[in-house]
Amino acid sequence: MPAPLPSEKAYIPFVSVENMMRLVHHVGIETMLVELTDAVEADFRRWDLFDKTPRVASHSHDGVIELMPTSDGTVYSFKYVNGHPKNMSQGLQTVTAFGLLAEVSTGYPLLLTEMTLLTALRTAATSAMAARHLAPKGTRTLAMIGNGAQAEFQVLAMKAVLGIEEVRLYDIDPKATEKTARNLAGKGLQLVSCSTAQAAIEGAGIITTCTADKQFATILTDNMVGAGVHINAIGGDCPGKTELHRDILLRADTFVEYPPQTRIEGEIQQMDPDYPVTELWQVINGRAQGRSSERQITLFDSVGFAIEDFSALRYVREKLAGTDYFQKLDIIADPDDPRDLFGMLQRAE
Amino acid sequence: MPAPLPSEKAYIPFVSVENMMRLVHHVGIETMLVELTDAVEADFRRWDLFDKTPRVASHSHDGVIELMPTSDGTVYSFKYVNGHPKNMSQGLQTVTAFGLLAEVSTGYPLLLTEMTLLTALRTAATSAMAARHLAPKGTRTLAMIGNGAQAEFQVLAMKAVLGIEEVRLYDIDPKATEKTARNLAGKGLQLVSCSTAQAAIEGAGIITTCTADKQFATILTDNMVGAGVHINAIGGDCPGKTELHRDILLRADTFVEYPPQTRIEGEIQQMDPDYPVTELWQVINGRAQGRSSERQITLFDSVGFAIEDFSALRYVREKLAGTDYFQKLDIIADPDDPRDLFGMLQRAE
Repeated sequence: MPAPLPSEKAYIPFVSVENMMRLVHHVGIETMLVELTDAVEADFRRWDLFDKTPRVASHSHDGVIELMPTSDGTVYSFKYVNGHPKNMSQGLQTVTAFGLLAEVSTGYPLLLTEMTLLTALRTAATSAMAARHLAPKGTRTLAMIGNGAQAEFQVLAMKAVLGIEEVRLYDIDPKATEKTARNLAGKGLQLVSCSTAQAAIEGAGIITTCTADKQFATILTDNMVGAGVHINAIGGDCPGKTELHRDILLRADTFVEYPPQTRIEGEIQQMDPDYPVTELWQVINGRAQGRSSERQITLFDSVGFAIEDFSALRYVREKLAGTDYFQKLDIIADPDDPRDLFGMLQRAE
Repeated sequence: MPAPLPSEKAYIPFVSVENMMRLVHHVGIETMLVELTDAVEADFRRWDLFDKTPRVASHSHDGVIELMPTSDGTVYSFKYVNGHPKNMSQGLQTVTAFGLLAEVSTGYPLLLTEMTLLTALRTAATSAMAARHLAPKGTRTLAMIGNGAQAEFQVLAMKAVLGIEEVRLYDIDPKATEKTARNLAGKGLQLVSCSTAQAAIEGAGIITTCTADKQFATILTDNMVGAGVHINAIGGDCPGKTELHRDILLRADTFVEYPPQTRIEGEIQQMDPDYPVTELWQVINGRAQGRSSERQITLFDSVGFAIEDFSALRYVREKLAGTDYFQKLDIIADPDDPRDLFGMLQRAE
């Protein structure tokens, strides 16, 4: 009997952390952030086509583990992601993730990849996409509040996509600000390290909050926020975790990804169920108004949605073509006769 | 600066298909089926402790892709699994799967493994567990209807756990029966290949149906089923996919895994929402009656539940200790300073 040939579909390309870093440097991080922003925006334009469901969360005392599936009818994706604020004190990541693309017609996986880095990149790209549609025109100054693992990605996306020139940094822990300033040195940005949130937002047209406490926090209060700014709130992303005082939300026009998920997880969990929100995809498609005046406060209450991961996974899969930035993983049992799974096992003895 | 030491948590043990086959042969398939049956039963005994949710299904024209998460508060698991009946005609598996264990306290993965083989093993173990509690005492004959990829696993579990001696095989495709009979030859079973389902169930105390059509099918009709048998229906496992005529369900006492999922996916999707069912875990725990008379028809309407995968994943993790049946996968980004994800990326340039 000739040796059975394993089907090409039985080996799944896997992108390790090391290979993801190689891919990022191969493309160039700012180029990649621009391309990811365009990839996410392209999928927001065809929002209607996607299977959408709030993520499936398993909450525990210390954090949450979530599965985030979606599909455009041809390709399926999901991400596994955790959020454990106290991990940092053990030297572990607050957020780690990996994800998968699969073919809808067969259910066979197409790609498995680390997504801790990729999530930081796609979250930054999504922020930049929202700011492209909502921030005041000509903004050159960003306040970056919360200088943890995602801060540099957020800053570079705003630079690459919107032309931000000045970045004002603040974190409750000055060491985090030092780390971020050090990492961003030499990137063509004017960096100002601030000792209060109030100081950080002076003159900023975009305020990004990205803090990790799992509690109702008030990173920004109403009196701090002047007219005309765009706020990008990405740290409040699970029940019981918010960053903004509710008075800000009463003055702002709020834009969200997927309302059924954001009402549970976002800043607007503080508000009544009928607090008005606009879906960002409708602004991008021209179906709803974005910024309508110079004095308006716009808020992107971002919690992260599965379609953004879908876009990032598809982007990575395209970029892998012709490179060796992946391994082949023997994860799908593939007997020559599909009904003969047991025979395959038996012959392996 | 000293080179950062990657945390041990950053490398996740991965069990490939090849290593899973090595593990099965190392343990011995019948021993493994007995141990898996006990592992699943141990978790059914503590059913109340688990986070339970119907699986998250993404249906398409050709099949379904599902995510099946659960947690006992200490360990989290999920399985990715597809079901695409027409895959077989393309030389592909109808069902492929992989799964993950993670630590609830940190969200960090503990194990990633193929689960196409492991699903066949745990499904067989679950059938044997149910039969141990529901089948008529002293049954030595099994009718195995549907001789596809799972058939041999089902048969061997019934042999190893219940002492089945005679197996009567039937499939709509005689080649599938030939394949199953060939694979089971020399395993200490008396094998009878039958040309009708009616002939296959003659004298059988346990009837297992495991067919793959994605449609309402009638593998068994009411007149075929005599008093006193135990039916193990595992092929009807998604909306629109059933195997038994509803008249059988009207005569049988039906036992299920998790009613909210089974009412959508199981044989009982044909019945009224108040069709009475007994949860199998309650029988195992002595909280509900199993078989109550010699003439009773018991039906295990099995669709597969996340806790069974949890048990199987935990079992595999324990069995891996001290072996080399796994690779280490670099899937978690692990900077020495957890807030310095960007610095890690930058230093890799």
